Amino acid sequence: MNKLLVVGTVAFDAIETPFGKTDKILGGAATYIALSASHFDVNTAIVSVVGGDFPEEYLTLLKNKNVDITGLEVVKEGKTFFWKGKYHNDLNMRDTLDTQLNVLENFQPVVPEAYTDSDIVMLGNLHPAVQLSVLEQLTEKPKMIVLDTMNFWMEHAWDLLLEVIKKVNVITINDEEARQLTGEHSLVKAAQKIATMGPEYVVIKKGEHGALLFHGNQIFSAPALPLEEVFDPTGAGDTFAGGFVGFVAQSGNISFENLKSAVIYGSALASFCVEKFGTERMESLESNSLTSRLQQFQELTHYDILLK
Amino acid sequence: MNKLLVVGTVAFDAIETPFGKTDKILGGAATYIALSASHFDVNTAIVSVVGGDFPEEYLTLLKNKNVDITGLEVVKEGKTFFWKGKYHNDLNMRDTLDTQLNVLENFQPVVPEAYTDSDIVMLGNLHPAVQLSVLEQLTEKPKMIVLDTMNFWMEHAWDLLLEVIKKVNVITINDEEARQLTGEHSLVKAAQKIATMGPEYVVIKKGEHGALLFHGNQIFSAPALPLEEVFDPTGAGDTFAGGFVGFVAQSGNISFENLKSAVIYGSALASFCVEKFGTERMESLESNSLTSRLQQFQELTHYDILLK
Repeated sequence: MNKLLVVGTVAFDAIETPFGKTDKILGGAATYIALSASHFDVNTAIVSVVGGDFPEEYLTLLKNKNVDITGLEVVKEGKTFFWKGKYHNDLNMRDTLDTQLNVLENFQPVVPEAYTDSDIVMLGNLHPAVQLSVLEQLTEKPKMIVLDTMNFWMEHAWDLLLEVIKKVNVITINDEEARQLTGEHSLVKAAQKIATMGPEYVVIKKGEHGALLFHGNQIFSAPALPLEEVFDPTGAGDTFAGGFVGFVAQSGNISFENLKSAVIYGSALASFCVEKFGTERMESLESNSLTSRLQQFQELTHYDILLK
Repeated sequence: MNKLLVVGTVAFDAIETPFGKTDKILGGAATYIALSASHFDVNTAIVSVVGGDFPEEYLTLLKNKNVDITGLEVVKEGKTFFWKGKYHNDLNMRDTLDTQLNVLENFQPVVPEAYTDSDIVMLGNLHPAVQLSVLEQLTEKPKMIVLDTMNFWMEHAWDLLLEVIKKVNVITINDEEARQLTGEHSLVKAAQKIATMGPEYVVIKKGEHGALLFHGNQIFSAPALPLEEVFDPTGAGDTFAGGFVGFVAQSGNISFENLKSAVIYGSALASFCVEKFGTERMESLESNSLTSRLQQFQELTHYDILLK
């Protein structure tokens, strides 16, 4: 069974959407990625940090999903990273109301011994310096390194971010971030430019409009499942990334053809994530539901073109 | 060969995009629809009106594309409908700088005798009263009536618009208009609501994000071709509609499966339209280019999902 190493935040989120609001609940990029990747036959470990205020039940939840949390440091006297945000009515925009870095501020990641030879490495959203440090601790070159990042690091850690981008095989990034990173409005041009920075695969996430996978001159367009209601978009991008790397890690195949399927798995998993607040839906998701949703994706995109 | 009747504007457009600007050039919904439909084996006629200022060469152009213009009234003493617009930098928004209805103001459409028994009727963007008048002149029930409309008529002719919507089998509408028509943000809910107003098929055009086809509980998602450069989006929606009805008229088949292919043809044709100003690209488009673009669409969406 292949090894998947995930680095990213493990956090408390407080979320407000048009449908309600939550107090501090479980959140964080690594959390969503690991929950999503847990649907694949793969050994997954996360590298992250939480404070002494982090509930035992959340640790148990991750362990029950077969996530190795040896690399999840608990700083007893510290407080867990906290993010509070409010979504606008159309759920496509959100305002950050509060960010408390807490234990993230001085986080020095330690990759567990057993995972320094991971097959797939997922660098979830976090300071590029932390992502770099994880890469430096690897003793063997992974089959694939995937980077997810966000606009904040483009504004505050540009040089380090470029250094990370140079080292990865795949970047997953949303459309606005791709434009910000490259100064190109056209996503095709943006993807081409990003490819020159390092990654041989560029995945542009377009939320409710699906995702695009670029590789050389090839493009794959995956739809998002049209939903009656998006309840809470928090974690959808990370869940997508988790499904993507989970699928690739399980198969061990990094061909363009296989990565297309990985994008579909990621999209299918993300479509569940938004159905409930926070991680709720992902915690209870069963594999038969995933299978029938993959079937829905196939129906959604299948057509027989009748050439004249 | 099936008969396709198209009603809509034939116009002068003056367009400004970030890439340049034009003086008065050929435009209008019926023009784009007819040019697009001319790629199919079908007898196409347009019902519209122009003024004495409309150049003979434009009439010749339409005739050379085998478009029957018997129903294109020329009001010698009148002036052709004129629209002037400017696109924002991202090309997703535009401002109307000038609209001169001219001969459209008192237009009474006359369906040519030979087309009162048309198989497919395309009601392109125009006053709902004109669209209704065309339907009233039909002597036989068409296999399919398709409506394209825009927000302007929702604001200025609501009751008449609803009357037209009730009579059509298919509506093609963009995402913002679908939301405005129904008050629903979710496109799934919007489509469901529109279906209760009459049409059994609802096509929601999302521009660079493709199109969705809704029918009962079934959904088909068509991508747009990711383009390096969109030069001028004018007429893309009409070109989509023209390809859609052209394909359906050629095949005479209005099943969901066939309409999926019609959406792909419409999308492929629209992807050409935006490559140059106005109708320029559509005037020169050859069928082998269309065939290879359809191939590109297939590559864009095809994947083999490997269920576990």
